[in-house]
Amino acid sequence: MKKIPHRLYLTEEQMPKQWYNLRADMRELPDPMLNPATFQPVSEEELYPIFCKQLAHQEMDCTTRYIDIPEEIQDFYKMYRPSPLIRAFNLEKALGTPAKIYYKFEGNNTSGSHKLNSAIAQAYYAKEQGLTSLTTETGAGQWGTALAEACSYYNLPLTVYMVKCSYEQKPFRKAIIETFDGHIVASPSNTTNTGRAILEKDPNTTGSLGCAISEAVEKAVTTEGCRYVLGSVLNQVLLHQSIIGLESKTAMEMLDEYPDIVIGCAGGGSNLGGLIAPFMQDKLTGKASPRIIAVEPASCPSLTRGRYAYDFCDTGRVTPLARMYTLGCGFIPSANHAGGLRYHGMSPILSKLYHDGYMEAVSVEQTKVFEAATLFAKQETILPAPESSHAIRAAIDEALKCKETGEAKTILFGLTGTGYFDMNAYSSFLNGTMTDTIPTDEELEKAFGELPKIPGIQ
Amino acid sequence: MKKIPHRLYLTEEQMPKQWYNLRADMRELPDPMLNPATFQPVSEEELYPIFCKQLAHQEMDCTTRYIDIPEEIQDFYKMYRPSPLIRAFNLEKALGTPAKIYYKFEGNNTSGSHKLNSAIAQAYYAKEQGLTSLTTETGAGQWGTALAEACSYYNLPLTVYMVKCSYEQKPFRKAIIETFDGHIVASPSNTTNTGRAILEKDPNTTGSLGCAISEAVEKAVTTEGCRYVLGSVLNQVLLHQSIIGLESKTAMEMLDEYPDIVIGCAGGGSNLGGLIAPFMQDKLTGKASPRIIAVEPASCPSLTRGRYAYDFCDTGRVTPLARMYTLGCGFIPSANHAGGLRYHGMSPILSKLYHDGYMEAVSVEQTKVFEAATLFAKQETILPAPESSHAIRAAIDEALKCKETGEAKTILFGLTGTGYFDMNAYSSFLNGTMTDTIPTDEELEKAFGELPKIPGIQ
Repeated sequence: MKKIPHRLYLTEEQMPKQWYNLRADMRELPDPMLNPATFQPVSEEELYPIFCKQLAHQEMDCTTRYIDIPEEIQDFYKMYRPSPLIRAFNLEKALGTPAKIYYKFEGNNTSGSHKLNSAIAQAYYAKEQGLTSLTTETGAGQWGTALAEACSYYNLPLTVYMVKCSYEQKPFRKAIIETFDGHIVASPSNTTNTGRAILEKDPNTTGSLGCAISEAVEKAVTTEGCRYVLGSVLNQVLLHQSIIGLESKTAMEMLDEYPDIVIGCAGGGSNLGGLIAPFMQDKLTGKASPRIIAVEPASCPSLTRGRYAYDFCDTGRVTPLARMYTLGCGFIPSANHAGGLRYHGMSPILSKLYHDGYMEAVSVEQTKVFEAATLFAKQETILPAPESSHAIRAAIDEALKCKETGEAKTILFGLTGTGYFDMNAYSSFLNGTMTDTIPTDEELEKAFGELPKIPGIQ
Repeated sequence: MKKIPHRLYLTEEQMPKQWYNLRADMRELPDPMLNPATFQPVSEEELYPIFCKQLAHQEMDCTTRYIDIPEEIQDFYKMYRPSPLIRAFNLEKALGTPAKIYYKFEGNNTSGSHKLNSAIAQAYYAKEQGLTSLTTETGAGQWGTALAEACSYYNLPLTVYMVKCSYEQKPFRKAIIETFDGHIVASPSNTTNTGRAILEKDPNTTGSLGCAISEAVEKAVTTEGCRYVLGSVLNQVLLHQSIIGLESKTAMEMLDEYPDIVIGCAGGGSNLGGLIAPFMQDKLTGKASPRIIAVEPASCPSLTRGRYAYDFCDTGRVTPLARMYTLGCGFIPSANHAGGLRYHGMSPILSKLYHDGYMEAVSVEQTKVFEAATLFAKQETILPAPESSHAIRAAIDEALKCKETGEAKTILFGLTGTGYFDMNAYSSFLNGTMTDTIPTDEELEKAFGELPKIPGIQ
């Protein structure tokens, strides 16, 4: 029998040299993005004012199965990748489960999360095109940190619109983004028309990812040589993040393992889409049939309680329309501590796969998430981010089911990042002041009522 | 020519199974610790009320060259070790130096530093002896976090005395230590006689490691089943930390490399002593002659401006006396951001080696340290702790000297940890409010005047 190491690192030679494009294997593709003015499918060229050309191309490319990772990006990856695949021996023991729990840990870089995988790619293509600045939004601050790192590496000025509740909960995020020369603005702000309109309507809003996106897009399209980049939701981001799943699958093969269940937290879908990519490929091509579970916060349950409909990707209604599971672009979730999961929609690719039955989804309450997070921290000596801890919660729940049934299932989950900037959240859990706020049916119906009307479609 | 990977991980099989005891190869041993009441060398048994027995034995053992790492500790190590040896390709390029810069990165665990290497060993031996609680002190909070993790793993209640200025600079350290069930007290405190005496004398003191040690020791010796553990200075700690150097040496051998210069930051000496151990062995046994450089803050320059004398290890004058480089146990350094380097003394082993000419020392000002830290962060995508950044500063300075002379020296430095809990320090550097406070000769003379008088010795 093979000796199972606690943590397995691939060698640099074993690292993927291509990203995997899940769309190439989907039987039915996600519905096309629509131009919000004409309601016609957008063309690649129509995206050029927002995204740099290579990224617009990747966004629209549904057929190229494998896309070469430019060598410069491969070299950057080698500064912090491969990330380890870890066997949770101690967690298994603490749970008394016969299940084998593996996790892919993406937190071993300064951004503290998987976000750097796409950030460096997007900064690289922007630099290659000769752009002179970038804008983006950030929720928990992980994406903003990652992109600031990547932009600093390429000397590209960056403005980050940070969701106001995260900005206030995480003062040190500002300092780290500034350490990497990023300019950070609390959103909604007075720097854009969208921001001003939202503030006028509700001066005390805690903000949302959707709103921060509006501001960043507006800033990009109104600034010469500037483009917008996004850390989740988009097809291009899932493409870049496929490196997580590709590495995981190779590592599991080396251990003669294959997951019965693959679990990831889901906000916009970047980590989940990346982690599951090659396993979903097996499922789509009939080679294997792992269960795939998306885990979302009960406070922002886009898959489990949302509508599958065309919606704006932002609150300000300036972006193209995407068909996805959505709570309505006007929905502002409660100030949950998992800032990275407070998005009203879900990746169109993942939405389609979920709609077609290839994927399950569960929602979990944040107090239950932090119970799992603290147990995990003590057993595995890694302090997980609140977002990642959603996946931990579901993995523990599945492992406990195995304990009941006696099944020795193999569980793989994505540990997307670390919680060093989330100590306020841990404090509120420890001192018992953390609450769970779940939207009522009425609140959701109200938000659904504001979904865009599209003649002949919805 | 061998291809040099960006980061090299040993396999679990290659990990050291024994710690290396530097004293076994020293030509002259450090002078013995003295009982502060009798001024006679302390015996192992006299240490039992303070340290658990196995650790007291390790503290006194000057002859056993290699000491087996218990299997349970080896298993714990495998949760976060081996740590990577990283080639700083990007930093080299940014500096334009012909030097080859390697660093051993110890920050990839939740404590964020190398401290866990000794914490888990000390908690293990305490548990093995049937002790029911532990106390300790912490400066920057890295040791407190590491020990809380280790104690939580073994269900050992822990009280942490945290230097007041760090406690105030780093509010989130409290939360993370509490996440691991540690009880944390700002030092000086009203919970001990020593703390009360110091507060009475100076109610506004920012505290010091020496003072926190006094409180933790007092609490330990006055509590049934409780012992004191320390994260630095002691011989036992250097022993446990030798795993850093042993792994580094094996990794460098795999790359056909040997360092011309080995650099570590130095507070109490835990990281430096561990990193240099096998290289110092080569030097002591005549096999090689690398330069070995200790880097300390200009605000707390125990090696570069201290006296080699018998002194108390704590401010409250309750511990045994050790002969070491010291600024005087009454010396309270300015509130430098590198809380982990604010200790008045230095490991007796390292002090002796420095005194005998086997090691160099430099002191650096904190603004220069943060210049190095931000440059490093941008090039290497790791946000370094202020303590670790002292080593980065010296490594950069040596690499720049190579640029002048054209020499392609091989530099190895220890990157002991991450700076996620030090964003206040980064902020003050970024906004230009960071200052450098260096003790005057008069201040040092005053502190030296309070060194203990020992009949026939000093």
